[in-house]
Amino acid sequence: MGKTVRIGIIGGGRIGKVHAANLTTRVAGVEVAALADPFADDALAEWAAGLGITRVIKDYKQILGDASVDAVLVCSPTDTHAPISQEAALAGKHVFCEKPLDQDPDVIRDTLEVVKKTGVVFQIGFNRRFDHNFRAIRNAVEAGSVGDVHMLRITSRDPAPPPIDYVKVSGGLFMDMAIHDFDMARYLTGSEVTKVHAAGAVLVDPAIGEEGDIDTAVITLWFENGALGVIENSRKAVYGYDQRAEVFGSKGAAASGNDAPSTVMLSDIDGVKGDKPLYFFLERYAESFAEELRDFTRAINEGIDVPGPKEALNSVLIAMAARESLETGRPVDVPRS
Amino acid sequence: MGKTVRIGIIGGGRIGKVHAANLTTRVAGVEVAALADPFADDALAEWAAGLGITRVIKDYKQILGDASVDAVLVCSPTDTHAPISQEAALAGKHVFCEKPLDQDPDVIRDTLEVVKKTGVVFQIGFNRRFDHNFRAIRNAVEAGSVGDVHMLRITSRDPAPPPIDYVKVSGGLFMDMAIHDFDMARYLTGSEVTKVHAAGAVLVDPAIGEEGDIDTAVITLWFENGALGVIENSRKAVYGYDQRAEVFGSKGAAASGNDAPSTVMLSDIDGVKGDKPLYFFLERYAESFAEELRDFTRAINEGIDVPGPKEALNSVLIAMAARESLETGRPVDVPRS
Amino acid sequence: MGKTVRIGIIGGGRIGKVHAANLTTRVAGVEVAALADPFADDALAEWAAGLGITRVIKDYKQILGDASVDAVLVCSPTDTHAPISQEAALAGKHVFCEKPLDQDPDVIRDTLEVVKKTGVVFQIGFNRRFDHNFRAIRNAVEAGSVGDVHMLRITSRDPAPPPIDYVKVSGGLFMDMAIHDFDMARYLTGSEVTKVHAAGAVLVDPAIGEEGDIDTAVITLWFENGALGVIENSRKAVYGYDQRAEVFGSKGAAASGNDAPSTVMLSDIDGVKGDKPLYFFLERYAESFAEELRDFTRAINEGIDVPGPKEALNSVLIAMAARESLETGRPVDVPRS
Amino acid sequence: MGKTVRIGIIGGGRIGKVHAANLTTRVAGVEVAALADPFADDALAEWAAGLGITRVIKDYKQILGDASVDAVLVCSPTDTHAPISQEAALAGKHVFCEKPLDQDPDVIRDTLEVVKKTGVVFQIGFNRRFDHNFRAIRNAVEAGSVGDVHMLRITSRDPAPPPIDYVKVSGGLFMDMAIHDFDMARYLTGSEVTKVHAAGAVLVDPAIGEEGDIDTAVITLWFENGALGVIENSRKAVYGYDQRAEVFGSKGAAASGNDAPSTVMLSDIDGVKGDKPLYFFLERYAESFAEELRDFTRAINEGIDVPGPKEALNSVLIAMAARESLETGRPVDVPRS
Repeated sequence: MGKTVRIGIIGGGRIGKVHAANLTTRVAGVEVAALADPFADDALAEWAAGLGITRVIKDYKQILGDASVDAVLVCSPTDTHAPISQEAALAGKHVFCEKPLDQDPDVIRDTLEVVKKTGVVFQIGFNRRFDHNFRAIRNAVEAGSVGDVHMLRITSRDPAPPPIDYVKVSGGLFMDMAIHDFDMARYLTGSEVTKVHAAGAVLVDPAIGEEGDIDTAVITLWFENGALGVIENSRKAVYGYDQRAEVFGSKGAAASGNDAPSTVMLSDIDGVKGDKPLYFFLERYAESFAEELRDFTRAINEGIDVPGPKEALNSVLIAMAARESLETGRPVDVPRS
Repeated sequence: MGKTVRIGIIGGGRIGKVHAANLTTRVAGVEVAALADPFADDALAEWAAGLGITRVIKDYKQILGDASVDAVLVCSPTDTHAPISQEAALAGKHVFCEKPLDQDPDVIRDTLEVVKKTGVVFQIGFNRRFDHNFRAIRNAVEAGSVGDVHMLRITSRDPAPPPIDYVKVSGGLFMDMAIHDFDMARYLTGSEVTKVHAAGAVLVDPAIGEEGDIDTAVITLWFENGALGVIENSRKAVYGYDQRAEVFGSKGAAASGNDAPSTVMLSDIDGVKGDKPLYFFLERYAESFAEELRDFTRAINEGIDVPGPKEALNSVLIAMAARESLETGRPVDVPRS
Repeated sequence: MGKTVRIGIIGGGRIGKVHAANLTTRVAGVEVAALADPFADDALAEWAAGLGITRVIKDYKQILGDASVDAVLVCSPTDTHAPISQEAALAGKHVFCEKPLDQDPDVIRDTLEVVKKTGVVFQIGFNRRFDHNFRAIRNAVEAGSVGDVHMLRITSRDPAPPPIDYVKVSGGLFMDMAIHDFDMARYLTGSEVTKVHAAGAVLVDPAIGEEGDIDTAVITLWFENGALGVIENSRKAVYGYDQRAEVFGSKGAAASGNDAPSTVMLSDIDGVKGDKPLYFFLERYAESFAEELRDFTRAINEGIDVPGPKEALNSVLIAMAARESLETGRPVDVPRS
Repeated sequence: MGKTVRIGIIGGGRIGKVHAANLTTRVAGVEVAALADPFADDALAEWAAGLGITRVIKDYKQILGDASVDAVLVCSPTDTHAPISQEAALAGKHVFCEKPLDQDPDVIRDTLEVVKKTGVVFQIGFNRRFDHNFRAIRNAVEAGSVGDVHMLRITSRDPAPPPIDYVKVSGGLFMDMAIHDFDMARYLTGSEVTKVHAAGAVLVDPAIGEEGDIDTAVITLWFENGALGVIENSRKAVYGYDQRAEVFGSKGAAASGNDAPSTVMLSDIDGVKGDKPLYFFLERYAESFAEELRDFTRAINEGIDVPGPKEALNSVLIAMAARESLETGRPVDVPRS
């Protein structure tokens, strides 16, 4: 194990809290130096104290100015990801940034440029790469068990749509939801997406449509290696979070199912019934959130690879191409990063 | 049970034989009056005799001219389906015709016009509508168990590509293979397909590409009721015939898996292993081939609905739109039948 | 294929009808010469005519006296199985007899002695040996996939208890229900049962207890090869016919699940729900009833092995030992056949 | 949340370490005051320091004498469980003791008597009561989903037998392995075991037999509420830890399967293959080990029920009855605690 990594967390919202809890209870070799949030109050401080985090502040710049801090987690609102990541890198802090880094590829490119020059570790929060099921598919692909990849399929359905206020600023289904699936598409196949066709519909909630967004999508992908892919999205599956993937190739197919609270099947007069999938991302990907931070510390101490600049940029490029395809009704090429 | 239906089988190839065997051993209330095939020989006659079919002839016109025959099965080569169906209808015989009726919508329309005038029963051989798994999905949809339909998915992979000679005349993947899936899309959702986008690739065998066809496809569907759909096709799944479907909607999802020879799972040092899916359509859809003929006799005797003119035409229209989409790279509207 | 086997069916009750339907529609190379039942009436004759069976008679002796008949199926009441089997064998007819041959081992031994002298084929109706799932387990065992057998488990639950009138004469749960499981135990492990311990309870219906029978049982088996086994029985599983088995050994385990009408899973607000198992033996073992008769004809024409004298006797010996164990509260040795 | 519970861990072997890691990283509201082990050395101290445990000592009596310590975990060798538990209770410490408390019921009774008088919390380490799958079965039973319980089945197979040195002192398969299953039998059915019949065999390793133990067992259980049960045990399943249970009753059955590293199924030329079950108890029951300690703190702070004196005693009484049954070849009554 390397030296203890002192981490500052920037942003005390939902995901910031998830990371704080994981860092203090499930990740070895780290220390939370401070938690910064402009809205920090007694409640947040008390919550943090329960995890042994004693420094809760309003201004993240204090973290950047603290020479004892090795790294930061950028968990602030999306539109601040890029500038704070740059600042942090320039301050010599390793950066773990939540996705997306930005919705504008130019801003992403600029930020990655800055990061690159500083030489710090940069990790983007594509936690699904650390999920046991998707890892197992990827491992099967890398081991050659499916042969040449011919087809990818991802089914990705949320249990419930986000609030309309979020829809207004999120960048839309492709940018806030499918972006994970675009990254998974690259991860599972080991190939870049070169073209996208997107079909969309508003079937879950008309209010989503009124904001110019969709809630249901079928996205066709063309990969550099010749394979095809398809992503199905819905904002609402009443039975819970539906997260499945399949890679099909010349030697076979590797397909993952959902995780459920238990394996119990109840056979009764009505049928044979099992649990619904785990409710949402905090449950389904709980372990992956811890695992990505374990790798962040390994990246810092041992230099291992983590989802980085390429992942931050390419997923956004695919999302933008999907949006353009939906608007124009035609397949759209994804620019090379 | 109605009166015994006397049936003539036109075409003694693979599917003609399947029907002959089913009619003589698994379908009640029918009698095979004759089997006609221009290449009929002693071997065919002997085979037929084993099933109790004593009249094996070369010229199907003898069947049409036999007043004791109530109905015919048209199992001849595809390009003869339409003219023979017309002739048979004009001769007053009920017609069960293998799919596709023709590859040309105008020929189909003309044929259906003739059939309609004669008033005979016309059934098209979309046997998958009689499959236990797809029926169960359809029943769930009709019962309202999935609510409003939002998404359809069909995974349809053959265990091995057809001979190149067949590829040359079959009309291509959309016409000879996906056509079943197009019909299933209509059947499972209960809605018409209004637009299609098709992506294709040659990944299984370059020889297929040399004939101008593809062997791998992702097809996006838009339905009249607003739902979206996707069909995945491959000419070659090394693990066998992969035939799954899922309908997802506002109240849930109904998804079918593959059928296998047994339910046995072997747990050993390598993992937990089950059977491959049943090999191909003759195995997987064995029961559906018998069931569609049972309904054919019910259609004759009791007037029940069977897959008919609309199914014969619309599936071909979708296949043609898919082909056009593949060629133009754009979504293509499906003309209303 | 050998010469057509002419078969007489003795007994027109439920199982006799199942066999009649299978012989006429699903078994090649046979002909039903006649169906005999002391209560034969117009309804039975009409039913038989629908299958093409034109000779329906009251006296089975006419079948035995008919020189054109090669074989008989003994589907009469249990207490007549032995005498009719003897008569038939002495008349030179091959015998397929429903189980049990008799409840008295001495009667069984005498009958088998007579059969043996005549040299006719004798098959006992242990149809589960022809079930696809149990066959797959047996094949795995024979192929060495589970290594040395250490443990057998059979779960065998009926969907509903039989009528009390049947309970009175059936010989009890061990003789009328578990007897199939005893035979399966021998079949799946390939080893003889040497000792039995039975625990029983009346939990389903007190009326069964009033007849001195039980409706719930746990039976421990000791096998000649050193393995142990357990059979669980219940007269009533509200979710349908529960028929599972597992053979566990030094190299792994082969376990079968139930068959269901479809593979469809419905995911909704309540969970993920599949079909109940097929309702009862006529549904679950439908194919096995046809298959056992196909093997009967092969036994006659080609001399292949079928479940015979050893199966007829040993299963009854185990059932008797189980009954004695239940009464005495101790394990009981199974006499060697 | 109640006040922080200060815990001393007695015993730094495998299970002591598991608890130490869980207390420091996965259980809120606790503090590890010290870790005591007679063989404590620098390596142990360093390991503990990594978890933030700074006090590692040789003599557990120092823990008992530390007024700031609220509770102890007794993770020492089995033959010291009882005396240390007594000492700890008399010192006013709440006691969490690994199973079994002792192999001698009289010693257990004496210990529980002492514990009772002191009024401290006493929890026995039956961690499987905290497993998600078994909890889900229990919940289904308590919710009435299976109706009246008619049958219990537990399949419990280890991936590999313990070292022979352990077999010599462990008390045998019933005492060291099946004891968990006996407790599960009580937990899942909510009823006491009144009688036991055990069949055993030596099939895995003759060396086990030479020590007078068995490695394979079928155990029949009779419950106070009239239900029957069966436990299957093997010391060696080559495919990993096999831990399944089923409760069957008048309204249905609730059955659990194994947990696996992933849900991925690989379909290839050989079949459809999934992961083996999680390897052994540390993997399968990882979460349950943390959960039982969370409940231990709740028992201290909030007075909730935990597996206690009854569980400690009754499981041993059943194990002893099983051993006697194996020796005598007869069912043996389990004395009432």
